[in-house]
Amino acid sequence: MPQILDGKALAKIIKGELAAQVASMKAAGQRPPHLAAVLVGDDPASQVYVRNKVRACEEVGFDSTLIRKPAQIEQAELLATIQELNADPLIDGFIVQLPIPKHLDEEAVTLAIDPRKDVDGFHPVNFGRMAQGLPAYLPATPLGILEMLRRYEIATEGAHAIVVGRSHIVGTPMALLLSRKAYPGNCTVTLCHSRTRDIAAELRRADIVVAAIGKAEFITGDMIKEGAVVIDVGINRVEDPLARKGYRLKGDVHFETVAPKASYITPVPGGVGPMTVTSLLLNTLKAARKEIYD
Amino acid sequence: MPQILDGKALAKIIKGELAAQVASMKAAGQRPPHLAAVLVGDDPASQVYVRNKVRACEEVGFDSTLIRKPAQIEQAELLATIQELNADPLIDGFIVQLPIPKHLDEEAVTLAIDPRKDVDGFHPVNFGRMAQGLPAYLPATPLGILEMLRRYEIATEGAHAIVVGRSHIVGTPMALLLSRKAYPGNCTVTLCHSRTRDIAAELRRADIVVAAIGKAEFITGDMIKEGAVVIDVGINRVEDPLARKGYRLKGDVHFETVAPKASYITPVPGGVGPMTVTSLLLNTLKAARKEIYD
Repeated sequence: MPQILDGKALAKIIKGELAAQVASMKAAGQRPPHLAAVLVGDDPASQVYVRNKVRACEEVGFDSTLIRKPAQIEQAELLATIQELNADPLIDGFIVQLPIPKHLDEEAVTLAIDPRKDVDGFHPVNFGRMAQGLPAYLPATPLGILEMLRRYEIATEGAHAIVVGRSHIVGTPMALLLSRKAYPGNCTVTLCHSRTRDIAAELRRADIVVAAIGKAEFITGDMIKEGAVVIDVGINRVEDPLARKGYRLKGDVHFETVAPKASYITPVPGGVGPMTVTSLLLNTLKAARKEIYD
Repeated sequence: MPQILDGKALAKIIKGELAAQVASMKAAGQRPPHLAAVLVGDDPASQVYVRNKVRACEEVGFDSTLIRKPAQIEQAELLATIQELNADPLIDGFIVQLPIPKHLDEEAVTLAIDPRKDVDGFHPVNFGRMAQGLPAYLPATPLGILEMLRRYEIATEGAHAIVVGRSHIVGTPMALLLSRKAYPGNCTVTLCHSRTRDIAAELRRADIVVAAIGKAEFITGDMIKEGAVVIDVGINRVEDPLARKGYRLKGDVHFETVAPKASYITPVPGGVGPMTVTSLLLNTLKAARKEIYD
């Protein structure tokens, strides 16, 4: 059986390190890093995500501010809120929880965030700097996966990595990061997506699989090469009348058939998810220390 | 034998279209698009490249300005020149010909160019916008290749594209562009590079090959699948005492053995090269019309 990539345990270790760094910042007379989150409307999933982020800040001793806005907020008012956060010297980084209601312009919102405070790494400036190998805030999920590969000391150079899913938040940046001349990196990367002719055939060649498709248990054991490293980004709700909440969380990977063939595999939940929140904290610390931008 | 992707002929057609558009701009009382190029030092290859760009402007009726600076120029003076060009309302777009002398900071120079005038598409803002599918100036070589695929009506959806070389100027943006949900695009893209274990094995699976390696005749017929589309970005000088200049230009592809297996192939010279200069003109026209940025 494979080694489990225990994101939950790793996140705990990293949070311990972060807490120690906050303590030494405070001892040096500095204020702790400060993350703000803007939540528009009351989408239940978004509320959970934002709450987890605020709670993670508390765990490590970061300051956090949650700004709630009604679903009917006008674009101009949301942009004004962003400008205030951009200008506030006591806020090191902030996020606007996506998705936002349909009447708002997500692109304009992303572009309005000062790249120096864009700890989600969604602004084109950060995305471009990442793609060009310059210092940048990396998007949280890919950063969490890199951190996981690093901490488990998984060899990546020359490996064939298959990334499934080409979103701007996960798949595309993951492909870029695994391609670049670095560790983790130096992989030969194939980016697969809905138009790929034979995803199973691609996957069978992979030493490293990153699944970010959004289809429950799409990847099954017959698609996986013996010894592959399998990273499952999917968090899909599957109805289950027997479960307490009426659903279970399933990854994009069919764990039962894939795990026996993998050398390393992430569980869902408890794999990539906890690492993603931790990445946001890492970026916020970088922001507070002005490690990326002056 | 394959169909030759005749970049020289295609560039001529596109330049004819550009000239017609300049004529109608003038007829409407507008000034023509204006490209400036900064050349630092007197590297012979750079001189040739810049001269070709200026000449291309003349051919289509664009205004052009060539700014020459001595190799010993200080960083601050070069940055001041860039600021002047950023501020000059009569310059729509400009480039700083790379490479620049070693004592200068290429990254700082690239970042100093206003993204709205960055018709080379090298600024992280443009790179990030491209990667995220937002309107952007695309880097000239990948843009030229896309234009070539489009004009020759080559099917790309679902095709397996192998890009060899991960530079920020060609390979990485080409991989991104061929991956995205668009035409040309929707390819399953594998980005190969110096750390790829078996480039030949990867290449044998490719429906579309983009070679941007910088090694003369590296890709040979045995590495190519029957019917592949082969795009050769390489321009390598190979010594040849019998040639008039003492060298010949060779691509990254061994044309004699690859061409018989390909469905389409670019020659070197006369393939990608002329399309690259044309792309710079296309970007400059977009800049003059403020199609990307207000």
